[in-house]
Amino acid sequence: MEVLTDGLIDGLIDGHCHRVLARDLDRAAFETACTEADLPPPPGVSYLDSRVGLAVRRWCAPALGLPVHAPADDYLARRAELGWRATTEALLRAAGLAELLVDTGLDDPDLLGEAGLAAASGARVREVVRLERVAETLPADTGAAEFAAAFASALDGRVRTAAAVKSVAAYRHGLAVPARPPPPRAVQRAAGAWLRGGRGRITDPDLLGHLLWAGVGTGLPLQLHTGFGDRDLALHRADPALAQPFLAALDPRGAPVVLLHCYPFHRNAGWLAQVYPHVHVDVGLTLTHAGDAVLPEFFELAPFGKLLFSTDAYLLPELYLVGAARFRHALRRLLDTWRADDSVSIADAERITALVGAGNARRLYGPGTTTTVR
Amino acid sequence: MEVLTDGLIDGLIDGHCHRVLARDLDRAAFETACTEADLPPPPGVSYLDSRVGLAVRRWCAPALGLPVHAPADDYLARRAELGWRATTEALLRAAGLAELLVDTGLDDPDLLGEAGLAAASGARVREVVRLERVAETLPADTGAAEFAAAFASALDGRVRTAAAVKSVAAYRHGLAVPARPPPPRAVQRAAGAWLRGGRGRITDPDLLGHLLWAGVGTGLPLQLHTGFGDRDLALHRADPALAQPFLAALDPRGAPVVLLHCYPFHRNAGWLAQVYPHVHVDVGLTLTHAGDAVLPEFFELAPFGKLLFSTDAYLLPELYLVGAARFRHALRRLLDTWRADDSVSIADAERITALVGAGNARRLYGPGTTTTVR
Amino acid sequence: MEVLTDGLIDGLIDGHCHRVLARDLDRAAFETACTEADLPPPPGVSYLDSRVGLAVRRWCAPALGLPVHAPADDYLARRAELGWRATTEALLRAAGLAELLVDTGLDDPDLLGEAGLAAASGARVREVVRLERVAETLPADTGAAEFAAAFASALDGRVRTAAAVKSVAAYRHGLAVPARPPPPRAVQRAAGAWLRGGRGRITDPDLLGHLLWAGVGTGLPLQLHTGFGDRDLALHRADPALAQPFLAALDPRGAPVVLLHCYPFHRNAGWLAQVYPHVHVDVGLTLTHAGDAVLPEFFELAPFGKLLFSTDAYLLPELYLVGAARFRHALRRLLDTWRADDSVSIADAERITALVGAGNARRLYGPGTTTTVR
Repeated sequence: MEVLTDGLIDGLIDGHCHRVLARDLDRAAFETACTEADLPPPPGVSYLDSRVGLAVRRWCAPALGLPVHAPADDYLARRAELGWRATTEALLRAAGLAELLVDTGLDDPDLLGEAGLAAASGARVREVVRLERVAETLPADTGAAEFAAAFASALDGRVRTAAAVKSVAAYRHGLAVPARPPPPRAVQRAAGAWLRGGRGRITDPDLLGHLLWAGVGTGLPLQLHTGFGDRDLALHRADPALAQPFLAALDPRGAPVVLLHCYPFHRNAGWLAQVYPHVHVDVGLTLTHAGDAVLPEFFELAPFGKLLFSTDAYLLPELYLVGAARFRHALRRLLDTWRADDSVSIADAERITALVGAGNARRLYGPGTTTTVR
Repeated sequence: MEVLTDGLIDGLIDGHCHRVLARDLDRAAFETACTEADLPPPPGVSYLDSRVGLAVRRWCAPALGLPVHAPADDYLARRAELGWRATTEALLRAAGLAELLVDTGLDDPDLLGEAGLAAASGARVREVVRLERVAETLPADTGAAEFAAAFASALDGRVRTAAAVKSVAAYRHGLAVPARPPPPRAVQRAAGAWLRGGRGRITDPDLLGHLLWAGVGTGLPLQLHTGFGDRDLALHRADPALAQPFLAALDPRGAPVVLLHCYPFHRNAGWLAQVYPHVHVDVGLTLTHAGDAVLPEFFELAPFGKLLFSTDAYLLPELYLVGAARFRHALRRLLDTWRADDSVSIADAERITALVGAGNARRLYGPGTTTTVR
Repeated sequence: MEVLTDGLIDGLIDGHCHRVLARDLDRAAFETACTEADLPPPPGVSYLDSRVGLAVRRWCAPALGLPVHAPADDYLARRAELGWRATTEALLRAAGLAELLVDTGLDDPDLLGEAGLAAASGARVREVVRLERVAETLPADTGAAEFAAAFASALDGRVRTAAAVKSVAAYRHGLAVPARPPPPRAVQRAAGAWLRGGRGRITDPDLLGHLLWAGVGTGLPLQLHTGFGDRDLALHRADPALAQPFLAALDPRGAPVVLLHCYPFHRNAGWLAQVYPHVHVDVGLTLTHAGDAVLPEFFELAPFGKLLFSTDAYLLPELYLVGAARFRHALRRLLDTWRADDSVSIADAERITALVGAGNARRLYGPGTTTTVR
């Protein structure tokens, strides 16, 4: 409560998030959406007995007019009573977000569109273009020989109004991605195999590498999924330290790279952000799920001017509010600790707060050209 | 002191522990048994200058009638004066354990038997069957062709009253274990090599994999050593994330897996517990040695319904009391922190305490059929 | 302030550090020297918005007569006004160091010599001999066949008055170094290739292994760079756990090994220090950059008698003062926490402080034979 009314951390820019469901859901679906799991818990276990579950009852219950820590049943009943639309608007407004950078690479007919998200949140919405999705949605008749040109053209069309591009290579091949643009012949060969194979997930490192290097070539910030996520990834291949050769090969004055999530490798990410000028670190997803105590570890090696806030919220508007509240609370707690032993002045604490909450994102992602929907 | 008298965390179920020595020991042996080391410290260094050493003097000294923080010499003198039997009874009683799941795979003629352990502790004792030990104790005339059947039969006989099976594959081959049952031919070949080689440690991944998959086939929870231990293991091969292919291949509605210890990979373990319904995490050994501050990290990603308490105590009854006291204290401290910033209600804090201390173990390991010794 | 005047942690022995610049520097150079980066930050980002930057303004500003948290511009103006020599003396004196073990392996004509460092600091200065540097400075006409003998002779000459030897193999090949002395033939071959290639960095594992094993053979403590550093190293190859086969192959009663820095693998290092009698852990560099909150993690598994203080300061005298102040502050904070829940007696807290701050170093590095410069 003290945090949500805290003027110091208002107008957050959510640098990486997803759309929410435009329909009601039952308890089982709600519970699962509170986690990175996609399977029901074993009998006797509730996914709401978790950091996210407690946070929903703490932060979201009051936003829906219930007491803090309302039981999960009460919360879900209230949610059903209000319906998804009113719930979404109440929670997104309570999150106090000024701008949302939305990864549009996850398709689901039940997701609220960007305009709806903007209307519900009162925030400006800009797009993050998922590179793999651009390839997957190329015209059906694209051949291997045309792949590179077709991808370049499609990407060019998509990035004109986008805030960033994004890669989920961590989910496909892991982060040991090529440290130089794969040669055209290799790309054509890999594209051919992928096209012939039915255009499923792109897992070939040359093809993923081509997408990554094309993404860097747009000049927009490149967001890179690193660290945990759903069970579709191999955790030990999602360590951002494995991307060091790729990061080292980039022009340090060129397109910035944002390492998303990072946990449990966030300390590795912080080091990369300290020694590579173009590397930045985003706390999204991690704070939401792992809790306040992780934030201080992001503030160990990464320069404060390269730390970014996001929620990585998906499906549930609760995850927007939890992500934002958790961030505000964790940052205030960290700075209170520093203040308590006189490690930082009040003026610097306020300045750092403004940087990580919005200033760094504004500098990195630019003013954008999209019309603001309010 | 406030913890030992704390009714909230009474009746702990110690989900993984070992037997204690049924004899007195000298200072050097006592010091070494307080660590995962098996060699004496360098001159001038005492292993009691450690988290465990301080904890023994804090928690065990009063249980033996000495002041808190009694010097190590006083403590050892008092211990010698009482003798191992009275010491064991005093410390085990003070630990306040309702049930012990004892890994019987470590043989030593000087170890107190299960009945003695039950009598000394006042706790019910059930068995955890170590898979590798079952193989090692097959009849001397077992041939390669009979190995699989002989192992199956021996295992079947052992697990009827057991609470769980356990594997120490992390110590032998590491956790990159086979993601499918090794084919019978490969098992026979590996068994033949192992039998001919004198039936020493089982290090062949096919043979270890056969044991693991047979263990899962019993339907009992499979306890898996992960993370640190003694110097017999290669730490970087004991990361539970390396077992992801194996875990992913199991039926999520089948036998549960309990990742033991986990440190320093406990955050990886927490993720596995979040995304795989059958995966659970146990804090044993880690809390005892690494201290209170690690517990909050176990509560980051793992659903609270999948977190388990154990001591992993071995040789010294002190390690039972230290493990239990550390757990009680660390959990109360974590929940006090959450309470202090209103992250959890009192009712939920009490409920979570009951789950992790005993409820989850009761659900996972079942009621058992062993006669309770009291 | 409470820390610098704290008599409990006076007379620190800085077990691993480097020389400082004997010239003034501009803001850009100063900022970069506060980090492990060697490239300027991106526009809009200051490297002083970091844990080190805040610490300089907190601890060093008062030592130069400015208020705590003086703005960076004021600090740099004051520094320029005083000049490098007066600045160096003020900061080194404020650091309260009794002895400095200086790695002399970094050459730069602008570095203050050891005598100057001793005069400025009022501390005794002893040398740490960098093994790779000894090889690199062998006579120009050394041939492959003479390499081993020439290296042995040069090393012998250098270590007579040294406190320790050091290897930066982590920067060259990573820490998966040979677990036995490479055979003479392999060393000669690798030396030949290196000599013919212009005697650049030594990256051949056989050659690095020869240096390491020769270092161990001196009987002096072997300091091993592990964990983070500048971008010249591959982070995932700098995990000290990768050196386990090498460490396991050493005589546990022989030359001690000191794992330097360790972060973000310091928990792995702590385990190595617990199970291998000859392995020790040094907090240098890590505390300076990552902050107070990391120190407790060093105190998890490592016996307290095997934990060592250093600053790893380089180029800037600020890094001496920040490293020392951070250590004092972090250690006091940790012990205050332990005291607050009665985990340690006052007498033990004082004893542990004395061990880690100086006693362990005195035992490990010996009294030395170098004349004290005061």
